[in-house]
Amino acid sequence: MTSNIPNRLQKIRRELVEKKIDGIFISQAENRYYLSNFLGTAGYLLITGRDAVLATDFRYTAQAGIQSPEYRIFQITGNSLDWFVQLVAELKIKRLGFESGNITFAFHRKLYEAMNKAEAKLELIPVEATVESIRELKEPEEIELITKAADIADKAMEHIREIIHVGITEREVAWEIEKFMREKGSQSLPFEAIVASGPNAALPHHRPSGRRIGPCEPVVIDIGAKVGGYCSDLTRTIFIDKQDDAQFNQVYNTVLKAQLAAISMIHEGTNGVEADSAARVVITNAGFGQAFGHSLGHGVGLNGHEQPRLGPNSTDTLVSGMVFTIEPGIYLTGWGGVRIEDLVVLENGKIKVLSKAKK
Amino acid sequence: MTSNIPNRLQKIRRELVEKKIDGIFISQAENRYYLSNFLGTAGYLLITGRDAVLATDFRYTAQAGIQSPEYRIFQITGNSLDWFVQLVAELKIKRLGFESGNITFAFHRKLYEAMNKAEAKLELIPVEATVESIRELKEPEEIELITKAADIADKAMEHIREIIHVGITEREVAWEIEKFMREKGSQSLPFEAIVASGPNAALPHHRPSGRRIGPCEPVVIDIGAKVGGYCSDLTRTIFIDKQDDAQFNQVYNTVLKAQLAAISMIHEGTNGVEADSAARVVITNAGFGQAFGHSLGHGVGLNGHEQPRLGPNSTDTLVSGMVFTIEPGIYLTGWGGVRIEDLVVLENGKIKVLSKAKK
Repeated sequence: MTSNIPNRLQKIRRELVEKKIDGIFISQAENRYYLSNFLGTAGYLLITGRDAVLATDFRYTAQAGIQSPEYRIFQITGNSLDWFVQLVAELKIKRLGFESGNITFAFHRKLYEAMNKAEAKLELIPVEATVESIRELKEPEEIELITKAADIADKAMEHIREIIHVGITEREVAWEIEKFMREKGSQSLPFEAIVASGPNAALPHHRPSGRRIGPCEPVVIDIGAKVGGYCSDLTRTIFIDKQDDAQFNQVYNTVLKAQLAAISMIHEGTNGVEADSAARVVITNAGFGQAFGHSLGHGVGLNGHEQPRLGPNSTDTLVSGMVFTIEPGIYLTGWGGVRIEDLVVLENGKIKVLSKAKK
Repeated sequence: MTSNIPNRLQKIRRELVEKKIDGIFISQAENRYYLSNFLGTAGYLLITGRDAVLATDFRYTAQAGIQSPEYRIFQITGNSLDWFVQLVAELKIKRLGFESGNITFAFHRKLYEAMNKAEAKLELIPVEATVESIRELKEPEEIELITKAADIADKAMEHIREIIHVGITEREVAWEIEKFMREKGSQSLPFEAIVASGPNAALPHHRPSGRRIGPCEPVVIDIGAKVGGYCSDLTRTIFIDKQDDAQFNQVYNTVLKAQLAAISMIHEGTNGVEADSAARVVITNAGFGQAFGHSLGHGVGLNGHEQPRLGPNSTDTLVSGMVFTIEPGIYLTGWGGVRIEDLVVLENGKIKVLSKAKK
């Protein structure tokens, strides 16, 4: 496979020109991987118009050389920031962008003080969501990996439908899901499976407990797999031993209607507020407006939650190449809840639903 | 079980006095849990001499009320920081400590700007490693949980010794370990198991690959379990179909001797540099000084890596109540490596080794 790295470097270098900076200092883990293919868990990238340096420590230099041939590998030694001062001088950087949403206040101060001590002149320019914005638009290879991850989650959901029964605990179901997905090729899960039964289903981010699942109650199951670093995200709400439960049916059908309304209206250029509103109005009209307390969806890629955001406060516009979730829910304290979530990609201006699990 | 939270709140309140601040803003995930028992994955604590507030969003307020009875639960709504401004005013905070090693540069700026906009007077005081220093000294209940996690890792290592064979891949071994530990009661692993065979064993943080383990080569296996939020950490180096391999024996025995030297010399008041040096001198004298590129060990608790640090640059002193690893290693590019790691607790001034796995 041809490396995507030169192309990604070209994109980030365009950002350097746009932001009038000489270089950018990349510290955020997924951004580092995205721009370098480096799989180590510690290290920094320094990218200028001409140079690309990966600075990491003893533990990772050997693998960095193999994984990141586009980079010069620089070994960090000791606890001081001398390596940073040295690199900035070598690369003749005067204005350096840093990821202000990732670098801590303390680390920024240490960088600043190290430069000051060396009497080196460097402007540290906070930049936000730069690589994240590039990552919003997925390459075909990325969509392929996400599709594989979505497929594993679909299969796990079908597996769970077969084995779930009254009396099994939430934790047992969660572990069954995890084992199934890992054995189907998922890497470590992007997030712990949510299995929320009965009243627990009213907690959108409940952690699986020892509670035994009872008859005639909703079970919200929210799971994701990871393939080649790329995540998926899928939620279904299961009702075991379903009788004619009028409340469940009403809530379920409202959430489903809201979800389908959003899926059918999103197209090239829809913004995150409009998408959210398309689902929210259905839920509000059914009298459950207060019970849908979260946003409609979020981007998915190397991170389980990333840009774009679909919600009442979103500032994002949805365009082709974006991969995101559509996941309305209704949560009623004491009773439980229903959430239905699909992963979708906007392709050639149209929504393609990646999640195939039965609703 | 009696809650440890009042006691921990008392300790952090002593720090407020010491640091001359009216309150502290806790954002770091494990610190938040440590001080509140709150298991949600988003939220902040605001602790003053009299008040304790847990601010979190819609998804978690219900569970926060159950898990953190010592706190007033405050629901964050919207994307602005109005909630922060409001709370700071209510609690009459003038000087607020924040975790500068956790709060990002961007978030700090947003807090600062929100206060400015509200024309509220607040000094934001960076504090470092405050809760972390309290967490260094473990309570008996914490040591109990760590011991359970160590026990699961020990059992997993024995299990692996039984099933490992020439031809199995690193990834298969890693998954076998994970499955075993999870089914013995571990929560999601604190870190992906390291299984590094042959030349891969020269990479201290190798990720398990599809490489098949061959005869007569070292396999470094570094694993940890998690029980009740508390981690363990254990490394053994296995040599399958061991012949009389002179190099392996020499390297292995040097690492073991170094490890035992450190274990036997550490006592109340030993500092992290001395401990490191006790092991390092053994390795250096055997001619492998350059091949031991990392530190001797690190604290273990709610985080897999925490205070204290044992290494050439450590500033920590080891005292009773601390739990940490002792893990010297020798790594030879092309050949492989050996690391031996035990988890220990300093109790009544003496080292007690928690790891029982055969060396």
